[in-house]
Amino acid sequence: MGGGPLDVAVLGATGAVGTEMIHVLERRGFPVRTLRPLATARSAGKQVTFRGQALTVQEVGPDSFAGVGLALFSAGGTPSKQWGPIATAAGCVVVDNSSAFRHDPAVPLVVPQVNAADVPAHRGLIANPNCTTAITLMALAPLHRAFGCRRIFASSYQAVSGTGARAIEELGRQVDQVLHGRPVTKEVYPHQIAFNVLPHVDAFLPSGYTKEEMKMENEGRKIMHHPAFRASVTCVRVPVNRAHSVAVSAEFEKPVTVEAARAVLARAPGLDIVDDPANAVYPMPLFVEGKDNCAVGRLRLDCALDNGLCFWVAGDQLLRGAALNAVEIAEEMLARDCLRVPRG
Amino acid sequence: MGGGPLDVAVLGATGAVGTEMIHVLERRGFPVRTLRPLATARSAGKQVTFRGQALTVQEVGPDSFAGVGLALFSAGGTPSKQWGPIATAAGCVVVDNSSAFRHDPAVPLVVPQVNAADVPAHRGLIANPNCTTAITLMALAPLHRAFGCRRIFASSYQAVSGTGARAIEELGRQVDQVLHGRPVTKEVYPHQIAFNVLPHVDAFLPSGYTKEEMKMENEGRKIMHHPAFRASVTCVRVPVNRAHSVAVSAEFEKPVTVEAARAVLARAPGLDIVDDPANAVYPMPLFVEGKDNCAVGRLRLDCALDNGLCFWVAGDQLLRGAALNAVEIAEEMLARDCLRVPRG
Repeated sequence: MGGGPLDVAVLGATGAVGTEMIHVLERRGFPVRTLRPLATARSAGKQVTFRGQALTVQEVGPDSFAGVGLALFSAGGTPSKQWGPIATAAGCVVVDNSSAFRHDPAVPLVVPQVNAADVPAHRGLIANPNCTTAITLMALAPLHRAFGCRRIFASSYQAVSGTGARAIEELGRQVDQVLHGRPVTKEVYPHQIAFNVLPHVDAFLPSGYTKEEMKMENEGRKIMHHPAFRASVTCVRVPVNRAHSVAVSAEFEKPVTVEAARAVLARAPGLDIVDDPANAVYPMPLFVEGKDNCAVGRLRLDCALDNGLCFWVAGDQLLRGAALNAVEIAEEMLARDCLRVPRG
Repeated sequence: MGGGPLDVAVLGATGAVGTEMIHVLERRGFPVRTLRPLATARSAGKQVTFRGQALTVQEVGPDSFAGVGLALFSAGGTPSKQWGPIATAAGCVVVDNSSAFRHDPAVPLVVPQVNAADVPAHRGLIANPNCTTAITLMALAPLHRAFGCRRIFASSYQAVSGTGARAIEELGRQVDQVLHGRPVTKEVYPHQIAFNVLPHVDAFLPSGYTKEEMKMENEGRKIMHHPAFRASVTCVRVPVNRAHSVAVSAEFEKPVTVEAARAVLARAPGLDIVDDPANAVYPMPLFVEGKDNCAVGRLRLDCALDNGLCFWVAGDQLLRGAALNAVEIAEEMLARDCLRVPRG
C-alpha cells in the first residue's frame, strides 16, 4: 500500500455517524484519493459533500469494494455482517462501527488512546466500540493502568444521536409539538423523549439488563485486556442532541486520591479535565458537542468504596463514540503500516 | 385540639411546592377550617385559590401564626430558620420542607411510608426530607428491612421543578429560544438546561460532592435508623419538568433475588411496580407527573455486587418529594393525635 492516498468507502454515508465520518476524514486530512459513499437501497441516490464536491450515494453491492483500500461501516449490524466478509475478500480493510464483530477474537476492538497496540493484529476487520463505553474508557482506562480498576457502577445520560439522524429529528419535532400544545407523535422511540428520560437503550436481555448496559463490561474487558473487570450499568436516553455523559463510581486495587487521579488524567490523551465546581465548571454534553476530546470532572473520593473515585465524563457521541474513533483507528493503521488485509 | 378542623398556614404559598401543598390539602380533604397563605415580602399580595376561593397571600410576620394549628413551610432555609421557632412558640406545629432542621436530633425527619413511628416524638417541628432521598427510599427502605442494605451507588435525573417555579419557566423559555434560533437567556441555572444536563444540584462542598448528593446518605441514615448506611451519589439536573428518576445499585447483607425483591416491593405502600421491559414498560418521569405513588422498575441482579440489586425509581418531585409527603406527615399527626406543640 505504501503511504499513498487510498480509495475510501463509507457504508451508511447518509446516517448521523456516516455523515460525521466523511466530515472527519476531510477535517483531519486523511489521505483519501476518492471517496465512495455507499448505503443500502433505502438511501442510495442521495447526495453527500466531500471536499466541496457533491457525490451521489451508491447502493452497496458485490463490486462496491473493488480497489477500495479502507471502508468505514456504519449502517448497522446486518449490513456489516453481510458486506464485511465481501469487502475484506476484495482486499479492503474495514473499520466497523456496529456490534457485529466486537467479540470475535480475530477482530481487534480498539479505542486508539487505550489499546492502539492491538491494531496490527487485525485480519482485515477492526471493530469500533460502543459509544458510551469508548467515552467512559477515555477516563477509566488511564485510571485502571495507574490504580487497577476492580469494578465500576455507572449511569449514562445518552444523547438521541446514538439512535441516528431520525432520533435527532424526533426530539426537535416533539419539543415543538409540546410547546405548541399539539399531539406528540412517535416514530423512533417507544415513548416521548422530549421532557422525559427513558431507561432503555438497545434491546433488553433476559437478565433485565439491556445489551447497551452489558457493553461496558464486555467491551471494557476486551479493550482494557482486563477479563475480571465488572461493570454495573444503567443506560438512560435523555433529551440531549449529540453528546453522552456518564456518572462513574470506580473501585481500585490500589489506594487512590483525587490529586493522584487528576495527575493521571492530565496526561491522558484525548481527554480534558474540566473540574472547577466552585465556579460551576464541569463537563456538560452541550459544551462537548463537536469536540474531539472528551471531558472529565466532578472528581471526588467515593463515599461508599474504600479505594474508590467518582467522576463524570462527557463526550461527543458521533465523534469519540463513533466517527472520530473509526478514523483514528485508520490513522493508526497508516502510522503502523498495516492498512492492508493480511494474506492467508 | 380534638379532631376538628384547623386553621392551616402555608408559607411559600406561591412557589412550586407551596402551590402544590394547597392543592394536596384540598384534594385529600385535610380538615382545614381556614387557609392562611403566607409568603415573604416579594410574593405577598399575589392570589392563590383554595376550594374555589381566591385568597390573598399575606406577608409572613410575627402575628401570622396566632391561632394556626398547622403550618407547612416551603419558602427556603432562611425563612424556615427565622419563622419556625416563632410559629411553634405560638402553638403552631410546623412541617418544614427546607433542609434547615433535618439533622436536628429534636426534629423527626419523616417519610410516612418508612418511619411514621417517628412522628409522635416531635416537639412542634417535623422535617420533610430531600425530594430525591424520599423518592429513592420509597423503594430502598422496604428492601433494606427485608435484606439489610449496606450501601448504594446512585445517579439521579432530577427535574427542574426541584429548583422552583422559575426553573420550570426557564426550561420552557430556553427550549423555545433554541427552536427559534434565538439567543438563550439564563436566569436560574448557571448554564443552559434545555438540551443539556448539569451535574450540579445544590451547592458544592469541599469534598467535591454537592450538598444534594450527601443528603441521600445523611437523611437516609436518619429516616431508616441505619447509621452505617453508605451512599455514593451523583445528582444531575435534566430537562424534565416535574418528576425525578434515580438509578440505584444496592448492596445487601442477605442474599437477594429479583423475585424476592419484587415480592417485597409489591407490598410497599405508595409504590407501584412498573417493570415489563420486554414491552417497553418501565418508570419514566413524564408518566409519574401528578401521581401520588412512586414507580419502580428495571429490577435486576447487580453485575458488580455479590448481594446486589439494581433498580430504577421515579416519583413526582412536587408530590412525594415535597407537598404530598408534608401533608401525609400532618395526616399521621392527626391519626396519632399528636398534631399539637407539646408543652415544656
